[in-house]
Amino acid sequence: MGGIPPLTRYDAQQLLLQIPSWQLSDEAHDIRRRFEFRDFAEAMSFVEKIGELAEREGHHPDICFGWGYAEILLYSHKIDGLHENDFIMAAKAEQLITA
Amino acid sequence: MGGIPPLTRYDAQQLLLQIPSWQLSDEAHDIRRRFEFRDFAEAMSFVEKIGELAEREGHHPDICFGWGYAEILLYSHKIDGLHENDFIMAAKAEQLITA
Repeated sequence: MGGIPPLTRYDAQQLLLQIPSWQLSDEAHDIRRRFEFRDFAEAMSFVEKIGELAEREGHHPDICFGWGYAEILLYSHKIDGLHENDFIMAAKAEQLITA
Repeated sequence: MGGIPPLTRYDAQQLLLQIPSWQLSDEAHDIRRRFEFRDFAEAMSFVEKIGELAEREGHHPDICFGWGYAEILLYSHKIDGLHENDFIMAAKAEQLITA
């Protein structure tokens, strides 16, 4: 993945149509979404599932969470920008919440 | 806890002497520490332990983590500032890392 350029803003916006709940950063550097939960335990449980998914996919988001919320930030560190894999991870995170 | 005022900056600084790896925010609103790890799995494992501690203590930090790091932010939401309990949680988090 190291040698390829990050996705352009245009390409990222096209892929974002598949995951409309996610936000693209101004510089098209990353995508993020905030998820809401009833309490800390529910947020923690979701974060654990994201962690398992990350290890399975070999692709690791940055995660901030606490009572009632979790924020997932995705980009590809090797290219310091967005890769199609980030959108695949985001779609899989969506499946975790609706499962 | 709702009726009492948050700790003053002076009192927070005194308590901070017990947990010198933690940083006090400028307005003495919260304390935080960044922990470093070898990879994502180690950071996740620490975060899970913090989550269990938080549920046990009934006191919930905000946590940001990813590959090789976890940041713990502590303050008492009811008083929107620091309470002695935040320093107790921080000390217990320290014990998790040295255990």
